[in-house]
Amino acid sequence: MKRSMKIDRDNLDDLALGTAFISTGGGGDPYLCQLALHAAIAEKGPVQLIDPDDLDDDATIMSMGGVGAPMIGSEKLPNGFEGVYAVRKLEEYLGIKCDALIAAEIGGGNGLVPLLTGLHMGLPVVDADGMGRAYPATQMETFSIYGISATPMAAVDEFGNGAVITTDDSTTAERILRQVSLAMGGQCTAADHTMTGRDVRNYAIRNTVSLSVELGRVVRRSKDFAGLLEATGPLLVDAGYGAPVNLFEGKVIDLHREMVGGYDVGEFVIASFDDSQQMTIKVQNEYLIAIVNGQCIATVPDLICVVDRETLLPITSERLRYGLRIGVIGIPAPALYKTPEAMAFTDPRAFGFDIDYTEMAGTD
Amino acid sequence: MKRSMKIDRDNLDDLALGTAFISTGGGGDPYLCQLALHAAIAEKGPVQLIDPDDLDDDATIMSMGGVGAPMIGSEKLPNGFEGVYAVRKLEEYLGIKCDALIAAEIGGGNGLVPLLTGLHMGLPVVDADGMGRAYPATQMETFSIYGISATPMAAVDEFGNGAVITTDDSTTAERILRQVSLAMGGQCTAADHTMTGRDVRNYAIRNTVSLSVELGRVVRRSKDFAGLLEATGPLLVDAGYGAPVNLFEGKVIDLHREMVGGYDVGEFVIASFDDSQQMTIKVQNEYLIAIVNGQCIATVPDLICVVDRETLLPITSERLRYGLRIGVIGIPAPALYKTPEAMAFTDPRAFGFDIDYTEMAGTD
Repeated sequence: MKRSMKIDRDNLDDLALGTAFISTGGGGDPYLCQLALHAAIAEKGPVQLIDPDDLDDDATIMSMGGVGAPMIGSEKLPNGFEGVYAVRKLEEYLGIKCDALIAAEIGGGNGLVPLLTGLHMGLPVVDADGMGRAYPATQMETFSIYGISATPMAAVDEFGNGAVITTDDSTTAERILRQVSLAMGGQCTAADHTMTGRDVRNYAIRNTVSLSVELGRVVRRSKDFAGLLEATGPLLVDAGYGAPVNLFEGKVIDLHREMVGGYDVGEFVIASFDDSQQMTIKVQNEYLIAIVNGQCIATVPDLICVVDRETLLPITSERLRYGLRIGVIGIPAPALYKTPEAMAFTDPRAFGFDIDYTEMAGTD
Repeated sequence: MKRSMKIDRDNLDDLALGTAFISTGGGGDPYLCQLALHAAIAEKGPVQLIDPDDLDDDATIMSMGGVGAPMIGSEKLPNGFEGVYAVRKLEEYLGIKCDALIAAEIGGGNGLVPLLTGLHMGLPVVDADGMGRAYPATQMETFSIYGISATPMAAVDEFGNGAVITTDDSTTAERILRQVSLAMGGQCTAADHTMTGRDVRNYAIRNTVSLSVELGRVVRRSKDFAGLLEATGPLLVDAGYGAPVNLFEGKVIDLHREMVGGYDVGEFVIASFDDSQQMTIKVQNEYLIAIVNGQCIATVPDLICVVDRETLLPITSERLRYGLRIGVIGIPAPALYKTPEAMAFTDPRAFGFDIDYTEMAGTD
């Protein structure tokens, strides 16, 4: 199904809700970018999304987004033009012009960054992204996984200071990028993966911007956690994900989080409301692994999403706190993340855990 | 006085001794680069030095050298072509060709890096440098101090992975560069400060390559510590430094050193041979401040140099160890480092010490 839409002031808030829902905790809280987008749309009009099918084969597309520990993003305010600096720097380095932008990851604020940048630059935004969620590292983007070079990669700060990184592999680019983000106060903005329209069609997770709008609408309209699960199901399946699963409901009773090497790293524990069970979730910016009674019940690359069980609002990892009553939703990853090539970069071992990928409990 | 010389296999070892002598502890042990240069000179012939006065006004010169904690350099072996990768990357970024190379710092191995790179690239090396010693940071180069932009700056590793850094000021460039060095295993090689022949004449510390050869010869020929001090005096004064001073003689009785933020940081204590006095020297890659009885007797930007009191061989900071019997030599900095502009970047406060610059005791 081909979907083509505009993002305007009427559906922007749903989009922000949806990107946070599908973020798996990372990508940053959308709030600040959402405010900047409201102002930019009021001034310049809506953002035109392009369906991947409508891209010219040889169109030039750049992937982009913020890089850093999400915790930093709640204290270090952006000026809103970081994306412009990053894309311009990459254009200058390559001596080419970009035709459209695509989100490196749809999850969280990073799902909105290309829209704000696109408005400022007069560029459309592809209705797709490179992760279908958020992940903590460049080499986990489908583009990198399926052979698009992440570099040259431009990383900039809010003053326009920048670094153009060139490496032979995405993992090395990520290592340098992460250190550059530390030099820039713990967060920077990157443009990378210069690719063609054909590449986007082959390797992007498709229609995740419009999906997020629909997910946000469902979040907003749902009356309870069960209703949310039920209503998101058809949207996710239609978009190529598996059907969502209720992994756990309970209260956050322990939370450990620190900034390590440019990431928010830690874990938190949820007790079921009847206190009969506990779930531990391991975090590296994103929710990576869910464990109950010493047993993994969900792991990357499948999605682990957290919502407030009362308001149904999605909770990004830096907003976790003791006492929150949450619902944990598992969503099987799209097909592009279930291949051996993709698993090599996104299964638990790729994150340093001595744990095998576990098919999500409760799925068919 | 204009000096023009070649560096060949006969004077290379003296050069290495001299760069270590004048290093103030940093710039890395010259040994590995010295071996690589012996091999390169045997194959390609001597390195031609150019006197700054012989540079065309509009010649394009790039400053270069290794970046990182010296301790890393004794474990992470270079392949010898890092400088070539760095200069080529900067040339490509700027779309220009470099006419000659100049050492960012003459101190230690970094005094030899441009020679090795120049041989590989067929480029001459200017008989001068940007520090007249070694300092731990880019913004401390005379070129930066006197208004030459440090960026674009290319930083590379031994695989050719790289980052081209662009910033408005050298201090920010240094902060990013230092993080990039960490991503590259604690050490990288940089090319920066693209400038003209005229700039070199105005802002470089002149003839420090040939000075180092002469200092090395004196180190090799001197019979004792007093003789070394006496023999280096006229050379240093002739080159624009102050007359060297005997700051302390004694035995290393305590040494604290750790890698912090990409630097070797610490301090060491020397007891006089009669045990009547102790000197503490503060280190950040380089020897920065010398304190006796709570009193600063020498500080940056003046040079604090350390030699083995028995062999007279210079001791770079990563080679310090308990029990070494050393002589500490103070050398007043050249005039370019005694201006208010230069002091703002190189006095003790620029290194975070709550200490004012102290005119060196024992000098006129």
